[in-house]
Amino acid sequence: MSTYRKWTLAKHPSGVPSEDCFALEDFTPDALSDGQVLIKTHYFSLDPGMRGRLSGDSYAAGLKIGDTIESAGIGEVIDSKSERFAVGDMVMGGLGWTQALTHPDRGLQKLDPALFDDKVAMTATIGVLGVPGLTAWFGLQDLGQPQSGETLLISSAAGPVGATCGQIGKTLGLTVIGIAGGADKCAYLSGLGFDAVIDYKAEKDLTKAIATAAPNGVDIYFDNVGGTMLDAAILNMKPKGRIVISGQVSEYNNETPIGIRQTTRFITHRLRMEGLVVYDYAKQFVQAQAAMAALIRDGKLAYKEDISEGIEDAPREYAALFAGANFGRRLIKAS
Amino acid sequence: MSTYRKWTLAKHPSGVPSEDCFALEDFTPDALSDGQVLIKTHYFSLDPGMRGRLSGDSYAAGLKIGDTIESAGIGEVIDSKSERFAVGDMVMGGLGWTQALTHPDRGLQKLDPALFDDKVAMTATIGVLGVPGLTAWFGLQDLGQPQSGETLLISSAAGPVGATCGQIGKTLGLTVIGIAGGADKCAYLSGLGFDAVIDYKAEKDLTKAIATAAPNGVDIYFDNVGGTMLDAAILNMKPKGRIVISGQVSEYNNETPIGIRQTTRFITHRLRMEGLVVYDYAKQFVQAQAAMAALIRDGKLAYKEDISEGIEDAPREYAALFAGANFGRRLIKAS
Repeated sequence: MSTYRKWTLAKHPSGVPSEDCFALEDFTPDALSDGQVLIKTHYFSLDPGMRGRLSGDSYAAGLKIGDTIESAGIGEVIDSKSERFAVGDMVMGGLGWTQALTHPDRGLQKLDPALFDDKVAMTATIGVLGVPGLTAWFGLQDLGQPQSGETLLISSAAGPVGATCGQIGKTLGLTVIGIAGGADKCAYLSGLGFDAVIDYKAEKDLTKAIATAAPNGVDIYFDNVGGTMLDAAILNMKPKGRIVISGQVSEYNNETPIGIRQTTRFITHRLRMEGLVVYDYAKQFVQAQAAMAALIRDGKLAYKEDISEGIEDAPREYAALFAGANFGRRLIKAS
Repeated sequence: MSTYRKWTLAKHPSGVPSEDCFALEDFTPDALSDGQVLIKTHYFSLDPGMRGRLSGDSYAAGLKIGDTIESAGIGEVIDSKSERFAVGDMVMGGLGWTQALTHPDRGLQKLDPALFDDKVAMTATIGVLGVPGLTAWFGLQDLGQPQSGETLLISSAAGPVGATCGQIGKTLGLTVIGIAGGADKCAYLSGLGFDAVIDYKAEKDLTKAIATAAPNGVDIYFDNVGGTMLDAAILNMKPKGRIVISGQVSEYNNETPIGIRQTTRFITHRLRMEGLVVYDYAKQFVQAQAAMAALIRDGKLAYKEDISEGIEDAPREYAALFAGANFGRRLIKAS
């Protein structure tokens, strides 16, 4: 058997996860049991939203010391004791930060190579067609309840969820305003067709900046950030506005959460705020992926991938996500 | 013409409204124009939820200096230049802290004396059958989406909204837990059939106290308080729990709002939080009032009124509401 490498949890982080929270281990996969497959990972993702599970706090079942770090991934079946998968099949699933893994033949999606071409890369299945894109799709359409002509505000808009959400919003006839940090990200969003962009790093008063960009108020706030940015959005919501809580990246590394202050607005403006777990929509995934792939081929949905090579760098790249340095879907080529 | 007295706004309060924020004025009503009625107030209410409108801040249209303080009231038409109302008619509407007023013949509900008896007092129309009761009725049923067997948690449960909400919850097959301050209020709620009562003044850790009372978690939190109590409830919500924001009495007197910290729970537990403005349901009021009156006559919905006599005391009694001293619907006999 070959030897592979994987990242496991060495200690529960507090704050932004430092490199000593992770351990790079060599391992040799066990022999397969019936109903198992051996997968060689091609790419895995770095997910800010997974941060909470590293803490192992008492409220949510989290990772234990020694567990492989979780992530989405795509890989190739290189050995199989299952009738469901043959050697050579490409699969997508929760593979983790590892070069290979033994996996039951459930919870994996077989990828049809014919679906991918020069416009839709196979890596899109863990990006714009994966959890980030599906989060944007169902969060905006099911929780946001958009009506053509309404105004949509998106935080962390240059991230894979936010950028997808904004482009879907344009196809639905919404006025789309993005919040992002820095001129590069703002230019990227303008290029995607966003109607207005707010560079939060350049604004002293975000509440006023939103009011300027959306003088008639915001109908839907698609929130990936939380904290003070969420409060600034709440103060600009129209009556009966909907707030979709997709991510809270400003909170994940806080020992004491920041939260929001403007709860009385929920009464005076009849606001609704709702959280999203994308797996609730699992039965509709295939349909949504087909619709988004069509938008990509029609040139209405662009996506950006930020791929680096080598499993060694995963912890450092993961910490960098919280500094807001990159944009696009953050992937690691595992070889 | 007779002379009457009314309370007007003398200055915008900060914090709990002090007596010098109000001015007691003598006045003589102007002669009626066509389409107007003169109403002699019998009772008016003291509403914590009106507090925000006293501040006259920039976000919500509030009262101006010299405006009559707003409240619900019932009164008698003593002069009429309208075909819609005759002298002697009893009416309910937004009469204010005044012994009499000139009012257009719109926005008033004529009360049928035959609907009231020794079980349902006419004052109930500005209490259990008025805004507080209707807030409980629509907030619980429309925003709470209760299913028989679920667990309902209510803050400020001994207030007119909370106590009504809990009793409606029992008729819907819910397990009902109330949070109130002090042994008297808790005993009152137990007498109303609440399954469990938490005396927040006697608990050091409200989050744990809720967990003890609701070991399997809370499906619906009907919130009249906000702030730290709302956070404690959020930490006990079941996945897909619904939070109804009915009031935020812990916030109304704060210069800097307290707010909540636990927004990431909206993702991990798919929570929904929604504010209520009862007037959105105006077309269904008559039907709901009839249903609640039937519950009262069946002995399934008790209500408590806390009536004091004399318009002079209104500002002092209003400030006392925020100290949590009273319970039941707080009314003033205006004569």
